[in-house]
Amino acid sequence: MDASSFKDFDARLAATAGETEALLERLLDDAPVTGETARPERLLAAMRHAALGGGKRLRPFLLVESAALFGTARSGALLAGCALELVHCYSLVHDDLPAMDDDDLRRGRPTVHNAFDDATAILAGDALLTLAFDVMAREEVHRAPAVRVALVNELARAAGLGGMAGGQMLDLAAEGRFAKKRALAIAEIEILQAMKTGALIRFACRAGAILGEADAAALASLDRYGRAIGQAFQIADDLLDLESDAATLGKAAGKDAAAGKATLVSALGPPGAHARLDALVREAEDALAAFAAKADTLRAAARFVAERRK
Amino acid sequence: MDASSFKDFDARLAATAGETEALLERLLDDAPVTGETARPERLLAAMRHAALGGGKRLRPFLLVESAALFGTARSGALLAGCALELVHCYSLVHDDLPAMDDDDLRRGRPTVHNAFDDATAILAGDALLTLAFDVMAREEVHRAPAVRVALVNELARAAGLGGMAGGQMLDLAAEGRFAKKRALAIAEIEILQAMKTGALIRFACRAGAILGEADAAALASLDRYGRAIGQAFQIADDLLDLESDAATLGKAAGKDAAAGKATLVSALGPPGAHARLDALVREAEDALAAFAAKADTLRAAARFVAERRK
Repeated sequence: MDASSFKDFDARLAATAGETEALLERLLDDAPVTGETARPERLLAAMRHAALGGGKRLRPFLLVESAALFGTARSGALLAGCALELVHCYSLVHDDLPAMDDDDLRRGRPTVHNAFDDATAILAGDALLTLAFDVMAREEVHRAPAVRVALVNELARAAGLGGMAGGQMLDLAAEGRFAKKRALAIAEIEILQAMKTGALIRFACRAGAILGEADAAALASLDRYGRAIGQAFQIADDLLDLESDAATLGKAAGKDAAAGKATLVSALGPPGAHARLDALVREAEDALAAFAAKADTLRAAARFVAERRK
Repeated sequence: MDASSFKDFDARLAATAGETEALLERLLDDAPVTGETARPERLLAAMRHAALGGGKRLRPFLLVESAALFGTARSGALLAGCALELVHCYSLVHDDLPAMDDDDLRRGRPTVHNAFDDATAILAGDALLTLAFDVMAREEVHRAPAVRVALVNELARAAGLGGMAGGQMLDLAAEGRFAKKRALAIAEIEILQAMKTGALIRFACRAGAILGEADAAALASLDRYGRAIGQAFQIADDLLDLESDAATLGKAAGKDAAAGKATLVSALGPPGAHARLDALVREAEDALAAFAAKADTLRAAARFVAERRK
């Protein structure tokens, strides 16, 4: 990618992040919506701490750009992207808890349980997850209830027992939390990561096709693209943890290596991991072939995911 | 209520509980469904510990009996009831955590964090909540996507920031967790309880009307009924905490009084609370007037909620 297209991509990513932030701000204002009794101040403040003021908003971006392939309304895709981002934010709040990964810093700020307390952080995560489904079910996401209910169902499966939450469980187990630690086979690491981080990224891309009422072939293409960049994202993340520092990351660095965490980087070695990353970017680009030039932003996103430095 | 109608009611409640249990058992078996990668054994075991083998399944019962007023398919109402029960079960798992209410016993068995550990309990709660929305979005709940998406949206609002999760936050605050403890006014206790326990019970009754594609008047009647029995449920619960023992309850007793917890029983005194309970049962019965004899089971349910002894 040459310097100018990188710049275009960065501007596009930043624009969607800004729109996402503005929408999240509105979703998390202090006025109760129909069906709510009141919005307790402390809980709302903790949710806002978790969801506002940061992040690349990569998942909403992927969702919006995938939906754009089909010419769907951007406003609905942005709202669906917010629902997805709320799930991502909840997972960070719970994963950071002392009982889980015990992290003090997130996006350069105190984690929610540090800024508030453990009970408030648990509830804030719960309420963010719950809000995600409220939002995804709203008429503003798409005029067709069948589309919204499909998105709700897929989001739940990507996030739950057989997806993200299950992946976090496998990760804790792999650290030797519940039994003697043992080295994971590469195939086991791939399953863990497909669940823990891959599932939401893959959902982002599938959700664009669902919003666009795409045919089966287009959905399959975006599914393949989403799987590839989900894997690429995790490898890039693990390389960053190895090669970067806390000031750049805005969170603790070197922690995975220190914990002897099972990653593809440790299993394949850094050169092997870089080669895998390149192959995944090619796979992602191949998956988009049928969309021709319309998918250039998604192609740039694949390279961005693989090459990002923070 | 004479002895024989009590017996009929008990049999009906037990039958629905049995059907709910069987459905939950199927929802929580070890076979991944479409969109899931794998079902990690430890997480699934913790979810099963939390959701299976107990409880009156009052919320599913109210949903099923409310839906029955409109002649909807019982199978769909039972599945929607399971979705609701999963939300209830998740809330118990998280509320029992050491960082929250720190309870060791639930339904006479160790709480999830005691039987497993805190991290697993947090994830099990998260995954139960997530599964609830997966289930509510399934076609088997109702043929019309518009009905399912309305149920998803209402369930989320009943459970989240402006409902149950918000109510738990207010409850922790009322215990003096974050600032100096102060006595709550009766109106504040009512709001807290309408959110913490009332919202899901009210949702159960509204959900029956939504499944039945009821008109606005019927929905309003069930809403009024649901509000009344939600309040009655909490007052009965607080009276039980005061008047019962742990062996009968299957959980710690006298804990609220020991913590000086703000309840309507402490605010009104036991005689005042009993009088309020009677008034709420009459209110619930009044709300059902338009349904005539078809609503006899719901009338019995109102009395059951107020008079239950465990």
